[in-house]
Amino acid sequence: MNPINLSTLQSLLPDAKFQNCDSLSNVNFTGLTSLSLANPSDISFVASKNFVNEAKASKSSLLVVSSETSESLGDKAIVVVPKVELATAKIIRLFFPETKPSGKRSANVAIDPSAKIGSNTDIGHFVTIGKDSVIGNDCIIEDGVKIGDRVHIGDGARIGKNCVFFDDTIVGKRFIVFGNSTFGGDGFGFVFADGKHNKIPQVGRVVIGDDVEVGSNCTIDRGALSDTTIGNGCKFDNMVHIAHNCKVGDHVIIAGQSGLAGSVTLGNHVIIGGACAISDHLTLVDGTIIAGGTSLRTSPKTKDVYVGWDLGLTFPEFQKYRVNIKNIVNLNKWLKRIEIIEKKVGIEPKES
Amino acid sequence: MNPINLSTLQSLLPDAKFQNCDSLSNVNFTGLTSLSLANPSDISFVASKNFVNEAKASKSSLLVVSSETSESLGDKAIVVVPKVELATAKIIRLFFPETKPSGKRSANVAIDPSAKIGSNTDIGHFVTIGKDSVIGNDCIIEDGVKIGDRVHIGDGARIGKNCVFFDDTIVGKRFIVFGNSTFGGDGFGFVFADGKHNKIPQVGRVVIGDDVEVGSNCTIDRGALSDTTIGNGCKFDNMVHIAHNCKVGDHVIIAGQSGLAGSVTLGNHVIIGGACAISDHLTLVDGTIIAGGTSLRTSPKTKDVYVGWDLGLTFPEFQKYRVNIKNIVNLNKWLKRIEIIEKKVGIEPKES
Amino acid sequence: MNPINLSTLQSLLPDAKFQNCDSLSNVNFTGLTSLSLANPSDISFVASKNFVNEAKASKSSLLVVSSETSESLGDKAIVVVPKVELATAKIIRLFFPETKPSGKRSANVAIDPSAKIGSNTDIGHFVTIGKDSVIGNDCIIEDGVKIGDRVHIGDGARIGKNCVFFDDTIVGKRFIVFGNSTFGGDGFGFVFADGKHNKIPQVGRVVIGDDVEVGSNCTIDRGALSDTTIGNGCKFDNMVHIAHNCKVGDHVIIAGQSGLAGSVTLGNHVIIGGACAISDHLTLVDGTIIAGGTSLRTSPKTKDVYVGWDLGLTFPEFQKYRVNIKNIVNLNKWLKRIEIIEKKVGIEPKES
Repeated sequence: MNPINLSTLQSLLPDAKFQNCDSLSNVNFTGLTSLSLANPSDISFVASKNFVNEAKASKSSLLVVSSETSESLGDKAIVVVPKVELATAKIIRLFFPETKPSGKRSANVAIDPSAKIGSNTDIGHFVTIGKDSVIGNDCIIEDGVKIGDRVHIGDGARIGKNCVFFDDTIVGKRFIVFGNSTFGGDGFGFVFADGKHNKIPQVGRVVIGDDVEVGSNCTIDRGALSDTTIGNGCKFDNMVHIAHNCKVGDHVIIAGQSGLAGSVTLGNHVIIGGACAISDHLTLVDGTIIAGGTSLRTSPKTKDVYVGWDLGLTFPEFQKYRVNIKNIVNLNKWLKRIEIIEKKVGIEPKES
Repeated sequence: MNPINLSTLQSLLPDAKFQNCDSLSNVNFTGLTSLSLANPSDISFVASKNFVNEAKASKSSLLVVSSETSESLGDKAIVVVPKVELATAKIIRLFFPETKPSGKRSANVAIDPSAKIGSNTDIGHFVTIGKDSVIGNDCIIEDGVKIGDRVHIGDGARIGKNCVFFDDTIVGKRFIVFGNSTFGGDGFGFVFADGKHNKIPQVGRVVIGDDVEVGSNCTIDRGALSDTTIGNGCKFDNMVHIAHNCKVGDHVIIAGQSGLAGSVTLGNHVIIGGACAISDHLTLVDGTIIAGGTSLRTSPKTKDVYVGWDLGLTFPEFQKYRVNIKNIVNLNKWLKRIEIIEKKVGIEPKES
Repeated sequence: MNPINLSTLQSLLPDAKFQNCDSLSNVNFTGLTSLSLANPSDISFVASKNFVNEAKASKSSLLVVSSETSESLGDKAIVVVPKVELATAKIIRLFFPETKPSGKRSANVAIDPSAKIGSNTDIGHFVTIGKDSVIGNDCIIEDGVKIGDRVHIGDGARIGKNCVFFDDTIVGKRFIVFGNSTFGGDGFGFVFADGKHNKIPQVGRVVIGDDVEVGSNCTIDRGALSDTTIGNGCKFDNMVHIAHNCKVGDHVIIAGQSGLAGSVTLGNHVIIGGACAISDHLTLVDGTIIAGGTSLRTSPKTKDVYVGWDLGLTFPEFQKYRVNIKNIVNLNKWLKRIEIIEKKVGIEPKES
């Protein structure tokens, strides 16, 4: 952790307004933390109006705030920024700079002579790289990564320990992935004949755009005939599964343990919460949001927030659904009430 | 990709009828792709009647069709086959032959002297093989695979990068697995006593039949006392979890991110869609189909298609359920209607 | 498997009552198995009253029983114990002793000179250990494990093949983990600005207590600012995902394919079944039980058993819900019945 001072912060955040900060010019800040944990040498932040009182009580000597909360904290040393989370992210990065590659390469590797490795790229221990694969400049390939043949990895990538890239996988620039993820395994395609499941060869590729981040223990399968494609700027959490032939747009978010079945198409800026299952061949238009825990079986027709177990409910409908859960558990009593009424008013009772 | 000509196709598909193909005898086909993407040098295929018009417009000079669509395409050069997908799979394999082992072995390995490795088996870099393990003939053990003690892997297996086999795992012939899957880890068994969870030793094995394919990042746990067993011809997608003591029949399909809890028994030809959770000790009879996204808590009594969150609904029931989702969100309004009726007809209103 | 005799069993289970065992003093038991599979040289066990008849028919010459079943089996050679499963677990361990470390270290490793490794610790092949990391005494670090910088692993740990520990992860004593699990990858945190998702640096750690067991292909992410913490005695099955900033108490059970979203707090002795999704920022109090397949969106207020897709139902409520599933599929018919009644009694029909 590097201590930083006020002028470094001012350079980092040129659009920010620093108020009541005169007394801080000699302070070396040593960290950024939550309001309640902060010491005088820590920067802290006020995420929303709900935290104003906590901010007043905090020992932090410098608070990152929005214009919304700056007035209530007018007597504190504050940094007023357009977006608190974004400024905070930048400050944290100052304290904890990213590890930079330096071109160091382990001797304990197995790299095919035909593979090309860019300048200033680190190669960890027990890495393998196959025929005709190309690794860009300024990459970090961590220990135990296994890369097949004809794989391309763009400049500035950071490939976490023990990840696997099967043949022909193409990855853009500044790609980040953590541990034990697998790219380019065969899609799941079989045809039943003669009493058994016969494999359909999977000869498409995985093609991933720039600025994509993937968590740990994810899987992205190669396409059957065409490619599985992931756009630019997508961010996937841990244990996300993308099946063959999916076409994922730009800046798509998929949270942990969610999966896309085969041939799903996601527009740009789609957000999928955790533990979601999207059925095969569905299409989600740009900006669609699927709440966590949703199992989706039909393509929603419009951009909206959808949620629920196979309900295809919009969020307002879902809220009514939740209200009615207590009614569901009493339905059998209701049925008796309807039957009693029918008897009383002389209606022939019907089955069900 | 190997270019192929008509006579090679005729040898490959002896039961097929080639119609209007005289002009193609000198063509070297260079690929097989979808109707819309095909060039004259590509073979394409007509999956069903829905694609007849697209087929007529396709630039492909040779179409694989069924007898159902052959008449509508009578003036095209066509190959009429009993099952389009199966013929297509065979043709793709011609263009993209499987990698064959050649007996090459990396020197960067750690193989116990007591282990036996068959003839013509490839061993990748940084592979480990433990005591008394036996690898068959004609296998490909890819880079980074870690194999424990007393593991048996049958002839013709292809073990993907960084997969792990714990001690005593037994795998049949022609096994395929992609990356980062784990076999033979301990089952999840504890007994609560003295305020803590005490481990029950897991001393059964994993025993897998012939012609099984497993995706990436799957887990199959060893049995507690008896074995976890997987029959012949089973195909599992990515992130499938099989818990201890499960008994899986032959030719079972399990799609991505589905799991079997402990001691589940699956008959032959069971199909489980993606993102399903099958509770412990359930039994599914031969041919049962569980639709994707289903959480199953009771053993269905008959072979059928089941679907739904804990509903145990057959597919026709499920279709009625879906129709009624819109009713669920209005149940609170219905309750008021029932109460108004009761008041009007002089029935004492009841709670709930 | 080590054969064992009666006196060894008597030493192992000092609180047990051995009845009718005089004739067994010369028997060498060779295993412990289920009642139906047991031979005379096998010990077996009677899990509950339901198995008394099977016990009478078993060929096993020694049965582990509880006081509940001991009377019914009064003429058999029995070992009466307070908790059958616990005694059984101890006996199995006698037959299958745990592998003990012996301090053997592969030469095929890459261990930073600043790392410290305790006495009697085994290091497998192709293991990497980064700067300033500390491995305790009596550990087994299996083949292919990749450990980053400043990682601490406590005494007596057993780290399974190909597991990954990113920088700064702290693990207590007697930790067990199986294959391909990943610890300390970045949490999933982004802030949307300027049309893209900007990474929030994740600078907290993973801190795991003593006596924790984790299955295969699990992921536990580092915290954003504060740590992700796991208490003592927790047991996690395969493919369990713990997101950043979660605080998990002591002796928590999480079954396969379940996940905690970010900042979830679990009390002590919480039990979460398989395939559950716990939404971010929820809190479960001590002793809460979440049944398998549950997607939980609100924090239950009391210790209880909860179950259901977003239902937040207690178990008794859930049982009523299940009864009413058949009613849900008929709701559209009920609506017609209500409408008919309304018409008959002269109530203005209402929409929905």
